[in-house]
Amino acid sequence: MKLFIPGPTQVAPEILAEMSRPAIGHRTEECARLWKECRDGLRQLMATEGEILMITGPASAMMEAAIRNTVADRSLHLVCGAFSKRWFDIALSCGKDAVALELPLGQGFRGEEVREALQSGVDAGRPFEAVTLVHNETSTGVTSPLEEIGAVVAKFPNTLLLVDTVSSMAGMPVMVDAWGVDVCLFGIQKAMALPAGLAIASVSTAALERAETVPHRGWFLDFIKLRDRNRREQSPTTPSTAHLYALAAQLCRIFEEGLETRWERHAAMARQTREWAAGHGWTPFPEEGFLSDTVSCLARGEGPDFVPALDTLKEQGILVSNGYGELKGKTFRIGHMGEHTSADLDDLFERFDAALGAEVREA
Amino acid sequence: MKLFIPGPTQVAPEILAEMSRPAIGHRTEECARLWKECRDGLRQLMATEGEILMITGPASAMMEAAIRNTVADRSLHLVCGAFSKRWFDIALSCGKDAVALELPLGQGFRGEEVREALQSGVDAGRPFEAVTLVHNETSTGVTSPLEEIGAVVAKFPNTLLLVDTVSSMAGMPVMVDAWGVDVCLFGIQKAMALPAGLAIASVSTAALERAETVPHRGWFLDFIKLRDRNRREQSPTTPSTAHLYALAAQLCRIFEEGLETRWERHAAMARQTREWAAGHGWTPFPEEGFLSDTVSCLARGEGPDFVPALDTLKEQGILVSNGYGELKGKTFRIGHMGEHTSADLDDLFERFDAALGAEVREA
Repeated sequence: MKLFIPGPTQVAPEILAEMSRPAIGHRTEECARLWKECRDGLRQLMATEGEILMITGPASAMMEAAIRNTVADRSLHLVCGAFSKRWFDIALSCGKDAVALELPLGQGFRGEEVREALQSGVDAGRPFEAVTLVHNETSTGVTSPLEEIGAVVAKFPNTLLLVDTVSSMAGMPVMVDAWGVDVCLFGIQKAMALPAGLAIASVSTAALERAETVPHRGWFLDFIKLRDRNRREQSPTTPSTAHLYALAAQLCRIFEEGLETRWERHAAMARQTREWAAGHGWTPFPEEGFLSDTVSCLARGEGPDFVPALDTLKEQGILVSNGYGELKGKTFRIGHMGEHTSADLDDLFERFDAALGAEVREA
Repeated sequence: MKLFIPGPTQVAPEILAEMSRPAIGHRTEECARLWKECRDGLRQLMATEGEILMITGPASAMMEAAIRNTVADRSLHLVCGAFSKRWFDIALSCGKDAVALELPLGQGFRGEEVREALQSGVDAGRPFEAVTLVHNETSTGVTSPLEEIGAVVAKFPNTLLLVDTVSSMAGMPVMVDAWGVDVCLFGIQKAMALPAGLAIASVSTAALERAETVPHRGWFLDFIKLRDRNRREQSPTTPSTAHLYALAAQLCRIFEEGLETRWERHAAMARQTREWAAGHGWTPFPEEGFLSDTVSCLARGEGPDFVPALDTLKEQGILVSNGYGELKGKTFRIGHMGEHTSADLDDLFERFDAALGAEVREA
């Protein structure tokens, strides 16, 4: 199978090979060196001096961690798709007084909307302890302007900014410290191009100080416990060392390519995808100015039905995603991230066009 | 490195190779088949008709899940070592009214002690909603009689039995349904002989019914959410498909060997280890009748200091564990589980003896 879904995505053969290394003891010096190597690389990738936490688990677990550790009572959730909605649900499931600010699908958040919502909490005498944002909504291909939103949240000193960069990290610019992100989390199976299995977060000093005051944080996802073990370059529990080997190797590959080059490669693939789509009458689903560089969500508009072509491609071993949830059949999504190149897209579009053509001929 | 530590342990080369398979989409039929294959095999391994839950993460996360899902208020924790103590700490971190029944290190629990503790809760008008037991305490090499304890807990209909079989599952008999275990959990890097990264639990109908009544279970570790997605043979989040491939293949290997043969192999290695140790004047640290088949914890007693030999072996690429925590220097632990054979132990003991001899000659 060749994956053009918005994650998991293709993994380089030499990185897959890292997954097969013999197990090592997680309390050995060898493992501590590997742990440190990963954390050092991640700090560079994320442009942060914050604490780098790693858990074996999905990014959703880290979303829950961010809530459990920074919110004792009340949180604001910027919701514009399935994954930002999930964060709101997670906060509710943890018993928080969670408030959702919801936009229609396809729209993204601007700083001004966030400012108004945060100010309303202050005016009501119940300021939000944290606000959650999904930088790149994988379900709709919407990227919200993180730098602009970060500047707004910085004006509310008691509100921490929690950001999910699951499908943007390593594919688009994310400047954690410069943009004022207190918790920046992601999985590794999207633009990082690794097999799924680790979740990562950077945590600011303010977020760690907050965590120390929040009761009942639980055990597995406790930021304080994770930070304390980091001082010995260890995990409190047995990590997937296979994934640590793969992560260390992939970070080297990413830095060899160069971060800016990598971002530009993704942006170019996004342009290429939109040009091809426009030729079929398919238009970007997100509103203008919010288009993702890593996943293109395309609306049918006046164009032909794409669903039979998706099925044909699947028979050829090529996966492209139908729309998410209620957008199924109305949109489809092409993940162009991680290891993908412009040449991969040329090949995909050629096959896609052939599938569409066969469809037309059969009709 | 060759690992004779009590986990992670050696992994067969053909299982390591499974870890390098290309990533697959976690919402595909291919992944659903793999998910089902794992769950079916696990049900057979665990001798249960209960719900089989799998998460990407460490077993400690599943320990937390067991608490969050079955205890609204009050739990009893049978503590006789570091890992049973961890479960008590986890319950406290979740804000539960957790009570520990603690034994000196080296001792294990009998049914009668458990009966008295549970009855005291009933007599006080505050019965325990659940009791936690670590079947095989990896830190002390103590195995408590699970069948006997299960029979006792069965007499307390409102108390669920939660059991950690991290270092016993697939190495020693565990009959989940016959022995009345409501939640049976383990990681895969011990007697299962897989790379660390998945945690597994069987959950009884009674435990699922309880979960539905417990508020604020959270999201990632919610039994109900995991069960509901199981119906589609999926995980709510992106799983480590590398580990699923490895697990499915290793379950086949385990059944090819035969469960009873596998258990007997472990019991025989435990006897072999004790005989060798006795020749040096080292005695089992656990009290008589509580000796583990998968990890031998040996006390120095009248025997020679073993610490320099552990260091020598480490230089040769062979890891044997020093005692855990306060038992360091007083005990050491040999993990004889998973892929290990009697011949592996012969080799280990020969090298160990040589290291001891060199030590004596140097002195």
